[in-house]
Amino acid sequence: MKEDLASARFFVIGVGPGDPDLLTLKAVRIIGMADVIAFPVTRGGKARARRTAAQFVTPEHVELPFELAMALDPELAQRDYDAVSRQIRDHLDAGRTVALLCEGDPFFYGSAMHVYERLVQDYPVHVVPGVSSLTACAAAAGLPLARRNDVLKVLPAPLGESVLAGELERCDAAVVIKIGRHFAKVRNAIAAAGRLDDACLITDADGDGQVIRMLGDVVGEAQDYFSTVLISGRRGV
Amino acid sequence: MKEDLASARFFVIGVGPGDPDLLTLKAVRIIGMADVIAFPVTRGGKARARRTAAQFVTPEHVELPFELAMALDPELAQRDYDAVSRQIRDHLDAGRTVALLCEGDPFFYGSAMHVYERLVQDYPVHVVPGVSSLTACAAAAGLPLARRNDVLKVLPAPLGESVLAGELERCDAAVVIKIGRHFAKVRNAIAAAGRLDDACLITDADGDGQVIRMLGDVVGEAQDYFSTVLISGRRGV
Repeated sequence: MKEDLASARFFVIGVGPGDPDLLTLKAVRIIGMADVIAFPVTRGGKARARRTAAQFVTPEHVELPFELAMALDPELAQRDYDAVSRQIRDHLDAGRTVALLCEGDPFFYGSAMHVYERLVQDYPVHVVPGVSSLTACAAAAGLPLARRNDVLKVLPAPLGESVLAGELERCDAAVVIKIGRHFAKVRNAIAAAGRLDDACLITDADGDGQVIRMLGDVVGEAQDYFSTVLISGRRGV
Repeated sequence: MKEDLASARFFVIGVGPGDPDLLTLKAVRIIGMADVIAFPVTRGGKARARRTAAQFVTPEHVELPFELAMALDPELAQRDYDAVSRQIRDHLDAGRTVALLCEGDPFFYGSAMHVYERLVQDYPVHVVPGVSSLTACAAAAGLPLARRNDVLKVLPAPLGESVLAGELERCDAAVVIKIGRHFAKVRNAIAAAGRLDDACLITDADGDGQVIRMLGDVVGEAQDYFSTVLISGRRGV
């Protein structure tokens, strides 16, 4: 992919889980040479990807923040992706290079992939993978995730309780993402699958507010949207 | 985890999929300050993690290569892990800091976790997550892996054909790892699950020998051990 790196003008960059020290050398280098830095801002005004890369963004960069309605409303999200894609197009057509920052890895449940798909046919694009929340959580918790012939599943919390329980019964290791208001349901599904003792809840992995608890010790109805439940594999060598 | 980083003397470091540019800033910094660099060597003499980090290993480092019998023989592997853990213990007891390099991410099917588990009770350890083959393959192939509420599964190729086919029938996205001599079986399982048209075969992602092909176009009985089949999610926004 050396050629695609040399010819690319649009870069989609995973900045990792939140610790600036977990950016890759490649991410730092491309941010340094890009003309425009695009990054998502939530409605609450948070720009986590921008904050993670903050020390590498300079006054010479043109900054392109864009609002994201999040996944809750697919139609609104479509509109947001269309809008930022048009803005990026304008910059690319004017001869500028654009780096789109995204939390974690761009292709692992990242919203940046929707912008990528709107532009990949028309411009040379290079995607820089990042450290995903999947392995960042495991490292932060000191819990090996999967080994040898383990089946590992990534399950979004909005899925139905019986789907979650069924998938959890047939796996060695699992990560349940986007916990938020689905916490009680997820906890029930994990208990039903007999995996409560293997599960821990991780909030803000590698961020300043990182908290790691055994799931069995946590009560309540809701947790942070970016909380993750990690069920580590059970097998030995 | 700031405290555990400051106090640690043993570091387990993911160096990413093979491109030196995908090392994290943290990995580079810790390699730079470590006294001893430990890394696995296959029986064929390959030291991929060492090669990936080569430009950051200096003559001042004490190098500690160790043989790995690989997962094929768990008993031999146990003996190898015991042996290198003893050597690392000796260095730590002599007051040296040790960085253990591993390909990809240490806790994502990495052999380093077996050394980690032998030492974590007795020494302060810090684990540095890395870019895993999971997302590196997706970025290299330009194929978004999973989005929104996709179920994503990681399936080791040595599993039985019916287990593989069953899991593949109930998911949106999947990655089948450690293909090697299991290629024909994996291809059959994917075809049985009706996902042949969504699948591509990636060899040596981000390495010099990278090859990406649609699985349907590949015939034969075996592939490289480190080949990966990626089945990307089917849903839109």
